[in-house]
Amino acid sequence: MQSCDFQGYFFNDSDVYKWVEAAAFSIAGMRNEGLLSLVKHVVDVIVAAQEDDGYLDTYFTFDRKKERWTNLRDMHELYCAGHFMQAAIALYRATGESKALNAACRLADHILNIFGQGRREGTPGHPEVEMALVELYRTTGKREYLELAKSFLDNRGKGIVGGSQNLIDHLPFRKLTEITGHAVRSLYLNCGAADIYMETGELELLRTLETIWRNFTERRMYLTGGAGARYDGEAFGADYELPNRMAYAETCAAIASAMWNWRMFLITGEGRFFDIVELALYNGALSGISLDGESYFYVNPLADRGEHRRQKWFECACCPPNIARLIASLPGLCYSLSEEGVWVNIYAKSVANIELGGKPLVIEQRTEYPWNGEVELVLDPEEEREFPIFLRIPGWCRGASVRVDGGVESTEACPGSYLRLHRPWNVGDRIYLKLPMPVEKLESNPNVEGNLGRVALRRGPIVYCVEQVDNPGFDAWDLVITSSSEIEAIWQGSLLNGIVVLKGDAVVSDSDWSSGMLYKPSSKPSPRQVEFMAIPYYAWANRQKGPMLVWLRYQDT
Amino acid sequence: MQSCDFQGYFFNDSDVYKWVEAAAFSIAGMRNEGLLSLVKHVVDVIVAAQEDDGYLDTYFTFDRKKERWTNLRDMHELYCAGHFMQAAIALYRATGESKALNAACRLADHILNIFGQGRREGTPGHPEVEMALVELYRTTGKREYLELAKSFLDNRGKGIVGGSQNLIDHLPFRKLTEITGHAVRSLYLNCGAADIYMETGELELLRTLETIWRNFTERRMYLTGGAGARYDGEAFGADYELPNRMAYAETCAAIASAMWNWRMFLITGEGRFFDIVELALYNGALSGISLDGESYFYVNPLADRGEHRRQKWFECACCPPNIARLIASLPGLCYSLSEEGVWVNIYAKSVANIELGGKPLVIEQRTEYPWNGEVELVLDPEEEREFPIFLRIPGWCRGASVRVDGGVESTEACPGSYLRLHRPWNVGDRIYLKLPMPVEKLESNPNVEGNLGRVALRRGPIVYCVEQVDNPGFDAWDLVITSSSEIEAIWQGSLLNGIVVLKGDAVVSDSDWSSGMLYKPSSKPSPRQVEFMAIPYYAWANRQKGPMLVWLRYQDT
Repeated sequence: MQSCDFQGYFFNDSDVYKWVEAAAFSIAGMRNEGLLSLVKHVVDVIVAAQEDDGYLDTYFTFDRKKERWTNLRDMHELYCAGHFMQAAIALYRATGESKALNAACRLADHILNIFGQGRREGTPGHPEVEMALVELYRTTGKREYLELAKSFLDNRGKGIVGGSQNLIDHLPFRKLTEITGHAVRSLYLNCGAADIYMETGELELLRTLETIWRNFTERRMYLTGGAGARYDGEAFGADYELPNRMAYAETCAAIASAMWNWRMFLITGEGRFFDIVELALYNGALSGISLDGESYFYVNPLADRGEHRRQKWFECACCPPNIARLIASLPGLCYSLSEEGVWVNIYAKSVANIELGGKPLVIEQRTEYPWNGEVELVLDPEEEREFPIFLRIPGWCRGASVRVDGGVESTEACPGSYLRLHRPWNVGDRIYLKLPMPVEKLESNPNVEGNLGRVALRRGPIVYCVEQVDNPGFDAWDLVITSSSEIEAIWQGSLLNGIVVLKGDAVVSDSDWSSGMLYKPSSKPSPRQVEFMAIPYYAWANRQKGPMLVWLRYQDT
Repeated sequence: MQSCDFQGYFFNDSDVYKWVEAAAFSIAGMRNEGLLSLVKHVVDVIVAAQEDDGYLDTYFTFDRKKERWTNLRDMHELYCAGHFMQAAIALYRATGESKALNAACRLADHILNIFGQGRREGTPGHPEVEMALVELYRTTGKREYLELAKSFLDNRGKGIVGGSQNLIDHLPFRKLTEITGHAVRSLYLNCGAADIYMETGELELLRTLETIWRNFTERRMYLTGGAGARYDGEAFGADYELPNRMAYAETCAAIASAMWNWRMFLITGEGRFFDIVELALYNGALSGISLDGESYFYVNPLADRGEHRRQKWFECACCPPNIARLIASLPGLCYSLSEEGVWVNIYAKSVANIELGGKPLVIEQRTEYPWNGEVELVLDPEEEREFPIFLRIPGWCRGASVRVDGGVESTEACPGSYLRLHRPWNVGDRIYLKLPMPVEKLESNPNVEGNLGRVALRRGPIVYCVEQVDNPGFDAWDLVITSSSEIEAIWQGSLLNGIVVLKGDAVVSDSDWSSGMLYKPSSKPSPRQVEFMAIPYYAWANRQKGPMLVWLRYQDT
């Protein structure tokens, strides 16, 4: 074998692994021989690069072999390893193919030889391997993998990766009281901690995660589910530091938030966690990819003057394969099972084949959600069976109602909870769920400086923005929503792959956009009445360039 | 002599030098034997630390002697040297004492031995020495100092200090088209370039400075004259990136802007440059020191929730002695001379003894400026003489008028220019200048995201803010100025050492400050009428903690 120059970033292996994982999820949903054959080829190439001792990281192969494991802080070897384990597990589950899984175990065993019990203390500069190791433990039953994941978590705050807050190494994990540091690292670490809690039941971990979660959702999360306010260090900011135009809100961070909140939901069964999954899915993560699937945002601002556009690829290409695996993983998030029954998390037109208590259950969803809040679930349990169905009532939804086959079900459809319907179900039984979706004017906590005196528009789970191309009569940033603005939701099937747009009346306070002056005496013309149109935030920047804004000026009239 | 541990930052020598410079300026204004004796003692201590070869930097004395000049990027040796030269020159001019000046020349000669013509190419990571070397050339006539300053400027963009944009080493100076990088370094470099232009007349330098200046004042300067938007790298941001709460706006950067604009005024005689000097003096620099002179801001935000308070000192203590030398230098800025005549730059109650064309001229100013725009200048040229007086008409002033001894002078008092009064002046002649100071509602260029839909209040050169302590009936951030708000200026001699406050009517749109929620449906109570009070920005944070805001919400009614 001949040496050749390594190209790209030292962690580019991980992008290939994320692609394999995405492909595996896709194949799990729908067998695709062409894709499977390509995946197998890629796995062959990957496994051929694995060293005899199990080590796998192409950057540290050949000339750099001596530098293995010498810089845990920066060099992402454990991060890449984690992504390979996740890809291998997904592929094994989708196809039964164990070649990659076996290689992943050899790699994990190699890492155990370096960092396992009684050996070197380690922790990764970029968390990721923790959740992968827990999943590998779940897949293989080898408890050392779980223990290794826990030791990586336990070793944070010891200065092994430099003690930096950006790497969440400034404190022991269980001493954290806020979400801080590099957003993706922080959120991946929380995923790992949640996974470790699930397998160990250590309550201190859950308490820490709850504390971090409250800080995240009450003070440091964008309305879109975006996470990580600062360009500097790709990091969370201080409480209420949520700039809009200068938002970082990396696509990968919204994805990581969805991953973490999915785990928190699995632990607790609480709707508030799935609310954040849904929020990120439809907004701050989905904005990361263009409607044609061919270009990507790394950074997701909530305000723009027309400069920010999706790119075909990035030198640091973490986001594109990450959103691919997120989208491909969605079928696995729609339903979940507990010992009691079946939980419906995502409403979407679909047919699900579920195994509940060893017996098949088919649930068909007829719905246009998220554009319409009416959902019809048609059940086929093959024969009458009694079990509870838990229906997610989104946190944004007030006045939800449920009807079962013509009879009105007495419900306490509390927003942000799961509604339990426990009764005998027969073939063809239908559940009619109504989730009212009025257009909402939302306000921000006033401590968020840039949002004070502004409102954002949301309908159902969809956050809206005003984009210049739809509003030729004024600059989008000059729009002022008033207390008397009436806004209606209109389906437009031919626009942006089919969306519900919002249209309404408002006023415009024209600014002098052509002025070269930075400051000058105020000389606003009187506001004028206009009609405006807003589109889902995720769909912006798919047409011609121009200003875009989520948080719109507001005044009481 | 015994070695001992160096304490503090490696560049702390410069703080002592700035104190000496401030003391020298102070002594020049008013002889003070106690202070002079202290300064002489400090100079003795400094000069005793100078090495036989002329080297002077206490950090690189003793153990670290070998490391001299090994890290121009980070270690500030040239920066400290520059401050010593400036201090020595100021002391020489104030007192005629040449001990420090001789030491400064020995140091400069030492630097010439290292970096002079035909020797090592150098440039400092932190500019400062350039302007000091030009001043040393002016003081001693030794042209090599000027040439060395020019070589340091010419060597930028060659990667000598790493090629970083933050250090303004990414491009040759003459290729710069924007103000960028670390704000203080960038502005000090401009000072040096302006000084070099003054001595060489190289037009490309002036053109570059003009380009940078336009970018600074049209896109990257706070209304207060504050400079440097970003915490990250203490740096200028992108065009229109001027966050208010997260403003960095280091006190030293506002001072550096005043220093640069003073030089630009000296070059051109144009009022627009002195406007920026005045702006920084009364606002973004002056806010750096408390009214009792005993505590300091390093960072000067334009919005706060009550967390940001002046400190007694800083580990990195550049700002306190810098504002000391700025304030002590003010007498030297009030008037300037050209071949033609005398220029009046600063209006302030004062008596100036000027030597014009070899003959004495006394000018007394009777005024309450900046609180009142009426200025009376009483001239004493000893005998009748004809010469022009140039009166600064501030850029903020519309409708200025001048009267000379009862007769109305025909004037074109163009804002931002100097009004030329050319006539024979006799003993006791009086000039009456009226600079109308209505309260102005200013608006920002709409590209500054955080200021859109907001106004700031200014009267004369003073920028105002609303501070919570004066407005107990509502949260300062909830105030909404309207187009019909009437605002009056009222002298309050017992408040904050005597200030003009602004009082007016406005409305308040109360926010829910106690909510723990980050986002929720908008439910604003109707706006209510209130009276509000605003104080000069420089005077904020001198009383109890609370919210403060410069850019106030605005709506047309």
